[in-house]
Amino acid sequence: MAEDVTKQEILAANERFYRALAEADLTAMSDVWHHSAITECIHPGWDRLRGWPAIRDSWAVIFANQGSVQVRAGDVLVRRRGDVAWVTCYENLAVRDQGTVQMSQMLAINIFERIDDRWRMVIHHAAPAPPGMIRPRSWRTSLN
Amino acid sequence: MAEDVTKQEILAANERFYRALAEADLTAMSDVWHHSAITECIHPGWDRLRGWPAIRDSWAVIFANQGSVQVRAGDVLVRRRGDVAWVTCYENLAVRDQGTVQMSQMLAINIFERIDDRWRMVIHHAAPAPPGMIRPRSWRTSLN
Repeated sequence: MAEDVTKQEILAANERFYRALAEADLTAMSDVWHHSAITECIHPGWDRLRGWPAIRDSWAVIFANQGSVQVRAGDVLVRRRGDVAWVTCYENLAVRDQGTVQMSQMLAINIFERIDDRWRMVIHHAAPAPPGMIRPRSWRTSLN
Repeated sequence: MAEDVTKQEILAANERFYRALAEADLTAMSDVWHHSAITECIHPGWDRLRGWPAIRDSWAVIFANQGSVQVRAGDVLVRRRGDVAWVTCYENLAVRDQGTVQMSQMLAINIFERIDDRWRMVIHHAAPAPPGMIRPRSWRTSLN
């Protein structure tokens, strides 16, 4: 029972991350992350970023460029040990471009630490999934 | 002092992983990993693999195809909380092909759990680093 509650908390933190990404909401994104010098982020095709200020700046650039997008985490797997949890999932993205919709899919690892009784993101690493992986079942959400 | 010893243990586990990869040694690779249904591995350009049997098979295929390679972890960052540790690093690869040497560089996240007092790999995710990142300083090893 307590384990189920904890898992739901971790999944909710993961969902908050994808909602902030979908809505290009820097305040919400800031609230997801642990503001620390040791947090790290690797966006698809980017070099490794370290520390919240660099990570915050990267989201500001991304949000300014792409605005809001349709994104859904699919096939979410969660593992926790103590105050550390890691989530792997597919990121299913649909970006509108001049009347057409471009679908893309990333594979992501997100690491969360429980800090002051909240699960905060300390690592995000996303990279393109291999072609041909985009499939309806990956649009399943973890919380439904 | 105890924290330094723990960090050295984690770095040593990470080094064992890259030595097994360099030597295409399936027995050594098997010894690095936690043999569990919940371990996960994402090779560059591959779909997510789950569970030790699938991961073992993937290494067997990779080792059969590429044999031994020159690989060195560079710019290694380590973070630990409790019995979980995560390492990010560049994987600097040099593959000989008909007299020429092909250099490539991946960005990796490795997660280790302390199980029976040994740090075992439970997640490996590597993806190509952006072009232009290959540089001598990335050949630094973490243990020297």
